[in-house]
Amino acid sequence: MALVNENYLKLKSGYLFPEIARRVTQFCQSHPEANVIRLGIGDVTEPLPPAVVEAMHAAVDEMTAHDTFRGYAPEQGYDFLREAITEHDYQSRGIQIDADEIFVSDGSKCDTGNILDIFGPDVTVAITDPVYPVYVDTNVMAGHTGTADDKGRYAKLVYLPVTEQNNFTPSLPTEPVDLIYLCYPNNPTGTVLTREALSAWVEYARQNDAVILYDAAYEAYIRDDQIPRSIYEVEGARGVAIEFRSFSKNAGFTGVRCAFTVVPKNLTGRTSDNRRIGLHGLWSRRQSTKFNSVSYVVQRAATSVYTTEGQAQIQRIIDFYTDNARLLREGLEAAGITVYGGVHAPYVWLKTPGGQTSWDFFDTLLQRSHLVGTPGSGFGASGEGFFRLSAFNNRANVETAVRRLQQLNGTA
Amino acid sequence: MALVNENYLKLKSGYLFPEIARRVTQFCQSHPEANVIRLGIGDVTEPLPPAVVEAMHAAVDEMTAHDTFRGYAPEQGYDFLREAITEHDYQSRGIQIDADEIFVSDGSKCDTGNILDIFGPDVTVAITDPVYPVYVDTNVMAGHTGTADDKGRYAKLVYLPVTEQNNFTPSLPTEPVDLIYLCYPNNPTGTVLTREALSAWVEYARQNDAVILYDAAYEAYIRDDQIPRSIYEVEGARGVAIEFRSFSKNAGFTGVRCAFTVVPKNLTGRTSDNRRIGLHGLWSRRQSTKFNSVSYVVQRAATSVYTTEGQAQIQRIIDFYTDNARLLREGLEAAGITVYGGVHAPYVWLKTPGGQTSWDFFDTLLQRSHLVGTPGSGFGASGEGFFRLSAFNNRANVETAVRRLQQLNGTA
Repeated sequence: MALVNENYLKLKSGYLFPEIARRVTQFCQSHPEANVIRLGIGDVTEPLPPAVVEAMHAAVDEMTAHDTFRGYAPEQGYDFLREAITEHDYQSRGIQIDADEIFVSDGSKCDTGNILDIFGPDVTVAITDPVYPVYVDTNVMAGHTGTADDKGRYAKLVYLPVTEQNNFTPSLPTEPVDLIYLCYPNNPTGTVLTREALSAWVEYARQNDAVILYDAAYEAYIRDDQIPRSIYEVEGARGVAIEFRSFSKNAGFTGVRCAFTVVPKNLTGRTSDNRRIGLHGLWSRRQSTKFNSVSYVVQRAATSVYTTEGQAQIQRIIDFYTDNARLLREGLEAAGITVYGGVHAPYVWLKTPGGQTSWDFFDTLLQRSHLVGTPGSGFGASGEGFFRLSAFNNRANVETAVRRLQQLNGTA
Repeated sequence: MALVNENYLKLKSGYLFPEIARRVTQFCQSHPEANVIRLGIGDVTEPLPPAVVEAMHAAVDEMTAHDTFRGYAPEQGYDFLREAITEHDYQSRGIQIDADEIFVSDGSKCDTGNILDIFGPDVTVAITDPVYPVYVDTNVMAGHTGTADDKGRYAKLVYLPVTEQNNFTPSLPTEPVDLIYLCYPNNPTGTVLTREALSAWVEYARQNDAVILYDAAYEAYIRDDQIPRSIYEVEGARGVAIEFRSFSKNAGFTGVRCAFTVVPKNLTGRTSDNRRIGLHGLWSRRQSTKFNSVSYVVQRAATSVYTTEGQAQIQRIIDFYTDNARLLREGLEAAGITVYGGVHAPYVWLKTPGGQTSWDFFDTLLQRSHLVGTPGSGFGASGEGFFRLSAFNNRANVETAVRRLQQLNGTA
């Protein structure tokens, strides 16, 4: 009798993005003439940079001849990519990360979920609230939580509110936790963590023998050197943190699929009888056994991002989306709407006008302005009364969206 | 205190392929002049077919323009690929599998490991012996086993010997099991299962409410219509089986990365309080939450395999490797060595001459003939005294390997 993983049955059925899709589809069917602009899901819209395109064509051509054909890749990724990553993203910034501490993968979503494989079943997990839903759902699926209450909060998870009141800086937990997810620049709020605040987290983890799962998928949007782009800029972080990085939002790889995870060799967990076990070895074994690396063509594409031309080209794309975020932010502020984020991140986090709930504002915006965003409450109970707009779109759509938001608020 | 998954610590450290690599490296260092031919790991060597190359270039070009750029794909794969798969691999052969029962992925290795996510912690698992090590190791990591004995057999796993004595057809378990891994054409033995034998397994699963995890990664090598290429050719299999397929060994995608898994909508597991739960919904949720589909370029590559030209081109590659297998088989037989497999599969499974152990024969073959293969005992205790040779190589190497094997046995 094949028993199922009953933890899956605890998952809330009304998952955020399917519910948004359902409402948008319904609206579009009854209003086929409406020009609906989607600022909901954080998916990129700009074409791949020329350096990447050139590298992919060249790699495809290599696969046509016996002497350059590539079969199975090393499960942890090709050395040429791992070395380019360490050199450009870490060592050139004075951060000590070695190439063999880099694990190339097909996405940070996959890695932030799969990383739970190497931890025991009874870990206590802290997440910020609001938060990227994948952190929550993968912990539910792994059995690290109880059931959800009517606000969608799961028993046993430790929620760390990030709100206006604490300037979107989560407080340290008041109870012991083992794993802590931090995502900065933050999805969904678009806010950042100062070096001091991040240092406090590293110190907490050191003192409490906790591991920080640091999702830096949006680090390329940071425009201020005082804000850490990597957790390893903080002294001692190598001993307490795993970092997730992605090519999705800097080089436009959401449809190409490449990311990487950094597991320092001196980072350890414990056994129940108190032996120290290196997490690097466990993750390496996990990837060797359950993963077969990323397409050769994709690994060449990712490597090209680190060439001089590649760096210049992706910077233009990042600047473009950052300008979109600025237009959204400034447009909303001019309309008297309170806005957070959107400076060092491609998301703006707005306070719903007139104290509407997130979903009421979603419906208003869709019905009256033909705009789609993401209700803050969908990211967690503390997101209620807020709303996320994504800067990933073309300029005309962003400008039209700003005009419609201003019209809406003018008449609201 | 971050506790680790202690099941990982049960894994045998001397994993098969690293140990082979260690011995080969050591030999090559002390014999730099030796022309070592590797028939060990089952990695393809022929270049990608022209239809695939053309499709990949075209897809890369689509990523260069706003109106054809593709971001996030549907997590279960693009419809164009799912429909091509169902049409060509199933419906055209009279098998009822719908496109939405296909889940596109980056590899069967990943899927056969990840599938355990949707089952409960207390399932009893049966595997054949010898077997593809990933099935064993992922179950160890998931906590479905006890520790290993000195032969490498893990407590709680149910081993089903496939040996000369039973003509490499596993007997039905004598104790209740919940999950059964079957891989046919078989890795490592290169043997196949008759329709009658497979029907018996489907009937067993129906009667015992078990789920068969059917790995058909090598189905393209079957040259006899009487041998099932899909488990769904057997009546009733939709209700008991998940099938894994790959583009690695038919289209040469070991470095491109694309595979798929079939989960029929009427396949169910149970909860501990005896409710039926559809596995299709659970796997769909797993993939939506922990996976972000495969590169657009790769999905176009896979789709091109189903064009008329693509089918003709991959058939030439399959025929080429099949001829390699025949040359190995016939050459070994001419040398008086007993050989199994290698007819409907790219692996030959030879009985070590003179009753040597698998590892002794490995060392003999490396030292005296400069050939690398895989010791049968590395795939399980019942593989002792056998040895796997892979047909994935160029013709000259295969012919040289046969000559060396014959010389070795003539002088042995």
